[in-house]
Amino acid sequence: MILENVNYPEDLKQLNIEDKKILASEIREKIIDTVSETGGHLASNLGVTELTIALHSVFNTPLDKIIWDVGHQTYVHKILTGRKDKLASLRKMGGIAGFPKTTESVYDNFNTGHSSTSISIALGMARARDIKGENSKIIAVIGDGALTGGMALEALNDVGSSNTNMIVILNDNEMSISKNVGGISMLLSKLRTKNLYVNTSLKGKKIIGKLPFGKKIIKLVQRTKRGIKQLVIPKMYFEDIGFRYLGPVDGHNIEKLEDILKICREQEGPILVHVLTKKGKGYKPAELNPDKFHSTSKFNIQTGEKISKGKKDYSKVFGTKLVEIAKENKNVVAITAAMTDGTGLTEFAKKYPNRFFDVGIAEQHAVGLAAGMAKTGLVPVVPLYSSFIQRAYDQLVHDVAIQNLPVVICADRAGIVGNDGETHQGLLDMSFTNTIPNFNIIAPKDFKELEDMLEFAVNLNKPVLIRYPRGTEEITFENHSKIEYGKAEVLEKGKDIVIIAIGKMVSKAMHVSEELKKCGKSVTVINARFLKPLDTDTILHNIGEAENIVTIEDGTVEGGLGDKIEKLLFENRIDINLHKFAYPDEFVKHGAVNEIEQKYGLDVGSIVECLNNQETNIKIMKTNY
Amino acid sequence: MILENVNYPEDLKQLNIEDKKILASEIREKIIDTVSETGGHLASNLGVTELTIALHSVFNTPLDKIIWDVGHQTYVHKILTGRKDKLASLRKMGGIAGFPKTTESVYDNFNTGHSSTSISIALGMARARDIKGENSKIIAVIGDGALTGGMALEALNDVGSSNTNMIVILNDNEMSISKNVGGISMLLSKLRTKNLYVNTSLKGKKIIGKLPFGKKIIKLVQRTKRGIKQLVIPKMYFEDIGFRYLGPVDGHNIEKLEDILKICREQEGPILVHVLTKKGKGYKPAELNPDKFHSTSKFNIQTGEKISKGKKDYSKVFGTKLVEIAKENKNVVAITAAMTDGTGLTEFAKKYPNRFFDVGIAEQHAVGLAAGMAKTGLVPVVPLYSSFIQRAYDQLVHDVAIQNLPVVICADRAGIVGNDGETHQGLLDMSFTNTIPNFNIIAPKDFKELEDMLEFAVNLNKPVLIRYPRGTEEITFENHSKIEYGKAEVLEKGKDIVIIAIGKMVSKAMHVSEELKKCGKSVTVINARFLKPLDTDTILHNIGEAENIVTIEDGTVEGGLGDKIEKLLFENRIDINLHKFAYPDEFVKHGAVNEIEQKYGLDVGSIVECLNNQETNIKIMKTNY
Repeated sequence: MILENVNYPEDLKQLNIEDKKILASEIREKIIDTVSETGGHLASNLGVTELTIALHSVFNTPLDKIIWDVGHQTYVHKILTGRKDKLASLRKMGGIAGFPKTTESVYDNFNTGHSSTSISIALGMARARDIKGENSKIIAVIGDGALTGGMALEALNDVGSSNTNMIVILNDNEMSISKNVGGISMLLSKLRTKNLYVNTSLKGKKIIGKLPFGKKIIKLVQRTKRGIKQLVIPKMYFEDIGFRYLGPVDGHNIEKLEDILKICREQEGPILVHVLTKKGKGYKPAELNPDKFHSTSKFNIQTGEKISKGKKDYSKVFGTKLVEIAKENKNVVAITAAMTDGTGLTEFAKKYPNRFFDVGIAEQHAVGLAAGMAKTGLVPVVPLYSSFIQRAYDQLVHDVAIQNLPVVICADRAGIVGNDGETHQGLLDMSFTNTIPNFNIIAPKDFKELEDMLEFAVNLNKPVLIRYPRGTEEITFENHSKIEYGKAEVLEKGKDIVIIAIGKMVSKAMHVSEELKKCGKSVTVINARFLKPLDTDTILHNIGEAENIVTIEDGTVEGGLGDKIEKLLFENRIDINLHKFAYPDEFVKHGAVNEIEQKYGLDVGSIVECLNNQETNIKIMKTNY
Repeated sequence: MILENVNYPEDLKQLNIEDKKILASEIREKIIDTVSETGGHLASNLGVTELTIALHSVFNTPLDKIIWDVGHQTYVHKILTGRKDKLASLRKMGGIAGFPKTTESVYDNFNTGHSSTSISIALGMARARDIKGENSKIIAVIGDGALTGGMALEALNDVGSSNTNMIVILNDNEMSISKNVGGISMLLSKLRTKNLYVNTSLKGKKIIGKLPFGKKIIKLVQRTKRGIKQLVIPKMYFEDIGFRYLGPVDGHNIEKLEDILKICREQEGPILVHVLTKKGKGYKPAELNPDKFHSTSKFNIQTGEKISKGKKDYSKVFGTKLVEIAKENKNVVAITAAMTDGTGLTEFAKKYPNRFFDVGIAEQHAVGLAAGMAKTGLVPVVPLYSSFIQRAYDQLVHDVAIQNLPVVICADRAGIVGNDGETHQGLLDMSFTNTIPNFNIIAPKDFKELEDMLEFAVNLNKPVLIRYPRGTEEITFENHSKIEYGKAEVLEKGKDIVIIAIGKMVSKAMHVSEELKKCGKSVTVINARFLKPLDTDTILHNIGEAENIVTIEDGTVEGGLGDKIEKLLFENRIDINLHKFAYPDEFVKHGAVNEIEQKYGLDVGSIVECLNNQETNIKIMKTNY
């Protein structure tokens, strides 16, 4: 075991190339073992094993700084920087994070999580170094998928003209997250190949495709084109925009990697090293299905089968319903930002290829594109992970809301997502969308209500955000009243306590109600459905003689449901105890969803306990979260 | 007068080229006359006069759709599409807008205002057309400055691979807004020239620069390089990413423009037409100082002098103070997104060129860059117009706030900006920043307090947003207590009414107080200073026996100061009348700032009247805005 004696980069420096090769396979084994138990990002880490070893061998980290774009590919880095023995705690509450965290190690130079930030960050650090007269190397490691993000392109533009010493490692694995979009190494070459292909080979393809082995021939031609392109075009492109281009280099050959990194260590100005890697490298199931092993739950190492697979989740319910809606309504189109599978659009993409658009990691453009479509008669449905919608805030305001266009934004992974931590929690979407005039905000209590709401939203003819959580429904409700604009749903009617919940928290409200009934309390449960416009009439009408009103939401306490109810109560001079159950105004670290809910007092037990132990003074509210 | 008989594009089609040349100069004259009276965007409109004539001559508008990026260059378009006689009402309340508005004309196909959106929108429309089996031409007109914006780059990436029929007109005027950043036609060529220049000519430049006529020689060399580059590189670049490239063409030659547009009208797939224009064309003062005439107030046509020039405004105060701070604190750096002059950074850029970074129109990168710098010991100060900060919402959250980094975001043009209308009003910044954990939000009551706050913010070592309005201070306050973290300032102490205001609205609070005193009322005035953290202690302590509490803010009512006070009152069970003066949850159209304030009841007169006529029932609050 080489790995046994490797804890920090200095240990690496004692090893020869043969040892490092063995180390690479030991690290891979450790990661596969761990992730098969913890879940996490597998394929990308297997892809950068040699690259990470080479980087820490050649550079003087942590003095030299590596900024990992997105950051889900840092397991190897964590193993090599003092966290080998903590790997089993990966992504668990209190354990090490699945992304770089500066609080965790001096080798983590910047927190990442969202795509396409690394070049800006690295340039900032490089300029800071120059201003302070220091001397260190700054390295951004970015995948070809992340290069389609506007922030990265803006940064490339600036770096190229800056003449600042810094290194961009282009980790070209032909993948973004879910499939081969941006498919080829980068913006330019991707497009050129596609275009060549479309322009010159379309007829040929159709004919060849029908021949025996036809598809193989097409693949071969495509591969050859890629080969040529990789040698010529990226070099030209990056040198044109001001980089010195080195590569392409085999990202699984440590010796060659070290050679090229040593060269660029000595260079001046902005350098781009083009590294070719294979996602899932060294683990056959992941090599064959890198998208399935991008972010995985527990799996069986031998077979590659997920331990708990195929559970219905909100994304799938969304996708299936959208296919059904699109069958009837020919104006419905779907747009994804490199998340076809994750957002449940795989079936839609197959059934309606002409009405399906994967724009790559490009949330701003995704929403702008939708706005253009909506303005001319289509109904675009745009599922994005809640925390990534933050990237398109201006487009929601400027391109959608001002003209009141019928764009349906679906905030998937809204609320607490769990193990991915701070950067991925979707706690802000209700609050930031609520500040935008003309936007409507709804959230379903279960799968069936998501279906109903999607149908409703597609026909609403106004901007609308539907938010739903990661994973499955907690309760399958029996009754589903019709979705009416701005109307809440009263699920239970009682006298002592009124609980108003939205989205997945309606299930918790039902459970809380059950528990409170056991204590002899009579409870009203209202499913808000609409955060905006809020159904103030139904809520006011149902307060009656209740002494306590409770709000439960899967979002930040600032500017969400609780706040809106609070204002309603004040404005109507209703003297009542209000308990707002929401996440506090802080960033919520990683852990299992149920653990996080417990930690913040948002599980059923904590809510019930809190309500049973309450003082009558409203001020207890402040300490509830 | 040719223009006399030209009202719509169909009238254009009757004219020969000679007539159109005369028309162009008549239109220029009309625009110069108008803008010298109304203020507005002059230079960009003079730059696209011939281009606009040619577009409406060749294409079948409004069936064929033109999407104007940013949209401030649409005065010529408005003149040619039925709004000639309304031009005098330009940007005035109730008059025609300074940007395209679909509610104003069927020829305005999409509202624009922010930069870099047009390609996404046009692609959306082109795809909608294809899905609906319609047949029209879709044209995006975008400046070279706007091409550095990430959204435009994301969209280019998508268009190139789409094979969709659409036309991008690259209006290459070598300018973004304030100066020659992105200076050359586009990303690529800009960078290459810069790079060539830096790499190969630096020594030469120093020597040549000292020779007689040296500077002229350098300029000549630069121009020649630009000439070569324009012919070769853009073609290569755009064709590589999937466009058919036509041009470059002289953007002031109507005949050539029509020829090239006719060619591209007949082509299939994505086409890019490279048009070379001169900002300010035909009006010498604007040609010589296109940045001064980008967006201008009233001016003297003969001399080009501004009628009311040189007034001190918040941007200048900010810039001057930052220069002073930077003299002492070598870690202070400034970042602008193509707004050096507008944000008051001109002097800073001259004095500290090594600590000044203009990243082009690229707000996301600007904030990411700042985060990288802050993480490694600098204190970046990033002034951005409030409504453009929306572009960097995710970066505020993900790159700055999660790590609690000391980035100072200055929201210039916060609140109502006036004549630029919906897209430019800065009404949301307080609310959307308030939802972000770790962010601090402050706003000064006058110039001196901005200086104090800037000093405070630079030393705070935490993320902070300072917001201040366009234009000048209303009151120059005499006393300025020290800025203390999370502390409000009590300006007047009375018994009947408590007014809490923030930022520029503190002046209004003082005037309101004066008026109320005349009616025998005794008033407390609190300058909140901090929206976050709100000084709840001072506020609660000062309510005393007052029967009315009033909040005044220059932002949306959703999630701002009024809402925070309202929650505070409810949570403390304070039974009091609350009057929240803020802008309602809607988009605010163009008009003079004072007119808008009157319309929404936010001028001193309206506030006083409202408070004097109040019923004691709190519900009147809802109708105040």
